[in-house]
Order: sequence, then structure tokens, then C-alpha cells
Amino acid sequence: MDNRELHVELARERKVVEKALARILRSQKGIPTRLKDAMMHSLLGGGKRLRPILLLWTYDAYCGGRRKPAVSREMALVAACALEMLHTYSLIHDDLPAMDDDILRRGRPTCHVQFDEATAILAGDGLQALAFTLLARSGGSLVGELVQVLGKAVGPAGMVGGQQDDLDAEKQEVDAGLVRRIHLGKTAALLAASLEAGALLAKAPPEARQGIHRAGLNLGLAFQGADDVLDVTATSGQLGKSAGKDQAAGKATWVRVDGLAKARARTERYGRMGLKKLSGILPSGAASQRLQAACSLMWNRDR
Amino acid sequence: MDNRELHVELARERKVVEKALARILRSQKGIPTRLKDAMMHSLLGGGKRLRPILLLWTYDAYCGGRRKPAVSREMALVAACALEMLHTYSLIHDDLPAMDDDILRRGRPTCHVQFDEATAILAGDGLQALAFTLLARSGGSLVGELVQVLGKAVGPAGMVGGQQDDLDAEKQEVDAGLVRRIHLGKTAALLAASLEAGALLAKAPPEARQGIHRAGLNLGLAFQGADDVLDVTATSGQLGKSAGKDQAAGKATWVRVDGLAKARARTERYGRMGLKKLSGILPSGAASQRLQAACSLMWNRDR
Repeated sequence: MDNRELHVELARERKVVEKALARILRSQKGIPTRLKDAMMHSLLGGGKRLRPILLLWTYDAYCGGRRKPAVSREMALVAACALEMLHTYSLIHDDLPAMDDDILRRGRPTCHVQFDEATAILAGDGLQALAFTLLARSGGSLVGELVQVLGKAVGPAGMVGGQQDDLDAEKQEVDAGLVRRIHLGKTAALLAASLEAGALLAKAPPEARQGIHRAGLNLGLAFQGADDVLDVTATSGQLGKSAGKDQAAGKATWVRVDGLAKARARTERYGRMGLKKLSGILPSGAASQRLQAACSLMWNRDR
Repeated sequence: MDNRELHVELARERKVVEKALARILRSQKGIPTRLKDAMMHSLLGGGKRLRPILLLWTYDAYCGGRRKPAVSREMALVAACALEMLHTYSLIHDDLPAMDDDILRRGRPTCHVQFDEATAILAGDGLQALAFTLLARSGGSLVGELVQVLGKAVGPAGMVGGQQDDLDAEKQEVDAGLVRRIHLGKTAALLAASLEAGALLAKAPPEARQGIHRAGLNLGLAFQGADDVLDVTATSGQLGKSAGKDQAAGKATWVRVDGLAKARARTERYGRMGLKKLSGILPSGAASQRLQAACSLMWNRDR
């Protein structure tokens, strides 16, 4: 698959995800208007939709053969939407004045700027609860495992813990090891869980799921490494969020610890390691090729 | 069961829940120290432990006969702890400066006062994720239903929505109908789900579960009605949280809409209605009697 084809496929899948996100959120009854508007603002305001696509394409990679998946692709899409909700809730809360205090996200005002802080806190809380409800609806016979994989990934020893470490690191000396720990929690845990959830829902064998999880952690480190680099090399217009912000805030990044050239090299190293692991595990086939091509974009990107 | 015996039983069960909460939280690995401390501060800082006890005692009421429960009582206790985590996360976020801006909770400084706002937001987020992870671990064959019942109860059409309505109501005219809607979301949804989850885990028949849920909503309205009354009649020392706060903030309460006497009567009416429904559904036996006695305390209380 060449690069142009890949981007066409990504755009197509992104539309599938966005249509499903809008349909699911619109169909929720009984949500106060202002709260629903805030959830829609943040959830439907663009974005790469990387996590849901990783789930779906890993699912597809394992559904190619004779294997019978645990759930239909329609249900996998519901789970994929739940991942995007978890990611979006974390962005809403990270952008709050008490956290990273940001005003721009996905090219639009952040949730608390567009609405208010209380509404933004509740929109994030509501998206997290809705995400787990959707995971519980979409997991079929593997629902217990699915919810646990995601719960662990976004919980206090995962994404939320990474965010805490990230904030605490603003006030202390950092080294590459601490940055790795922060990036693992803040970013890699959910990305790895996205790949693992796709394998799980396709009923991939447990040892394959474990390998995919480990590959996903490396790819997640590469993804966050690319973010560190882009923070100092790209413009806000490109990123759709404030550029140069991490540097100004003294965030723990590999660029801060290592300088730009070394940070780039480290990012690529993690990416290649993850991709190599992944290619050793995935079954052969076009869907696996497509997934690997998408994964290589995680650190080869300009936004 | 007389009142003294009931309070002895409640105190005993509270200890069981608190021991389990401490054990579960302490055993979580990989949580940043400051985040874990904040979660412990809020989770282990006292409280009535009403929701977990309602789950356990409803479970017990249905386990008396020959019925085989879906999970062991040990697992029901894990689910019960998850409910307390959901409740505690909502308290942490409600107390934030951008929300109700409170400094006292369960007789101690609120989470953001003891730590800081960012840590409090993350402690709440982490407790919600951990709660769903525990529910996923404890639901046995009914895990999908269990997570959905709780996800709906605390989600944007439940607890989080009630909190949004509550904040929005500070700026508008309120009537008894709006107060009912707010109380249903903010308080009754999770209380009803606590009873329902106990019935679910004991494998009570679906129609009984539905009836218990409806009874739980009425009992939840009575519980919140009692809160409205206590806000103007009790002291902060009694409550362990700031008294008179709702009135000062112009919160939507039945006391504000109806005056104290009518609010008391309404609260008791909802309570008796809920209790009557419940007694018509529960199987006979000592465990059911104990549950009903505990439910009558929901509006007959001084803290």
C-alpha cells in the first residue's frame, strides 16, 4: 500500500468513526442540553481518530482468516468510539486551567473556554462514564476483559497516573527515564490498549494480544516522542493546538532532556522497535499491511 | 430488628467495606505517590458507606433462599467498593472551586484543599476508572449488565447530568419538578443502581430488579430531600461538610421551593413510597428486614 492509498483509507475510516460518534452521542437521551453541547463540541471537533482506527484495523487484521471474532465489526466500531471518548475526556481535563491551561484544541476553543470550567469537568466525567457503558455493550463474551484492559489503561496506574507524573515533573529535575515513564502512562497505555482491544474483539490468541500490547507501548512512545518534537518544530496552525507550549511550561519531554536531534532519533528507534514487534506477531494479509503502514505514521507526521 | 441492633449491624458492615476499600487501593501498583495519597485521603476519610452497604444487603436479601448467586459475596464486596469509589469521585469533583467550591468533606479538608486542584481532578478521574475496572472484575457472567447499570447511573443522563442541572439551576427560577429532576440524577440514580446491582449479582429475576430500581429512585429522592432539610437544620460539625451551603448558594432544593415543613413532608412521602414498593418485591427473611430498616434511615437521620 503506497502512502497516497493509505491516506485515502485513513480518511475513509475517519469518516466511519465520526459518523458513528455523532450517531451514538445524538441518540443518548436525558442529557442536559448544555452538557450534551459541551460533549459534542469536544468529541465532534475533529482529530486524527487514531485510537478507534487502530482498534478497527487490528480487528480487521485478525478477522481475515477463518477465525470467528468475538463481536461483529459493528460492535467493534462501538468499542472504537468508546476509545475516542476516553481520549477526548482526557484532553478536556488536561486543558483545564488547573492543569495545562490551554485555550486551543483541534483548531477550536477548548471546552472550558467555549463553555465554562464546571461544564468542562462534567463533560469529561460524562464521556468517561459513557465510554465504559459502550464498552460494556460492545464486548460480547469478552466484555469483562475488554473493560479491564481499558480501565487499566486510562486508570491511575495508566493515563491518569501519567498526567499526574507530567504535572509533578514541571517542578523537578527530569531525565530520560522519567520522561519514558510519563509518556508510557500519559500516551502509550491507551494506544497499546487500542491495538489490544482490536485483537481481543477479533479473538486473537492471548499470547498474540500480549505481544501486540508490548508493540503498542513502543509505538505509543514513538507517538508521544513525535509530539515532543512537533511542539518545537510545528506551528499552532499545523497542530490545531498551542505549539511551543510544552517547552514554555518546562514539560518533561525528550527534547528538553536530550535536545532535538537525539529526541528525533529516540522517537524513531521506539517506532521501529514497535513496528518490528508488530510485524512478527500479526497474521499475513492486506489488513495487517495496512495496519502496519498506519502505525509507521505515528512518528512520521507533521501534525 | 430494633434500632440499636441496626446501628450495630451498620457499623459492622461499614468496617467490612472500609477494610476492603483500603486493601484494594493499597494493592494497586504503579500509581504515582501523590495521586494515590489523594485518592486515599478522599476514599478512606470516613463516610456512611451507604451505597456499598445497600448493594451488599440487597445481595444478602436475595441469597437467603435456594437461589445460586452470580458471584460470591467476596466479589459482591469488590463491586460494592466500586460504588463507593464512584460516589467519592463525584464528591471530589463537586467540591472543586469551579463547581461547589467547598473546603470541608467528611469532616476533613476537601481533596483540592489538602492537595491541589489538578491532583483532585485526577484523583476523581482515577477513581472512576478504577471503579469500572473493579466492576468488570467482579461481575462474573453478568459483568456486561453490571457495568451498564452503573455506567448509566453515573453518566451524563444520570449523576453527571444531575450535577450539570444543579449548577445551571443556580441561575434560574426553579420549581418542585426541576428539583425532582436534579435530585433524581444527582443522587437517586446511583442509590437506585446500588440496590439494583445487589439484586443483579444475586441473580434476582429481571422483573424484581426493575421494581427494586424504581423503589431505589424514590428512596434516593428521600435521601436527597433529607440532605436539603439537614442543610438548614444541622451544623457543619454534625454533617462533616459545610452546613447552610446550599441555601447560601441558591441551590435548587425542596426547602427553597416549598419551605422547610413541606420539604420534610415531601421527603417522608417519597421515603414511604420507596419502602412500600421495596417491601412488596423483596423475598421474606431477616436479610430483607434488615435492608428495609436501613432504607428507612435514608430520610430519618441527623447527619
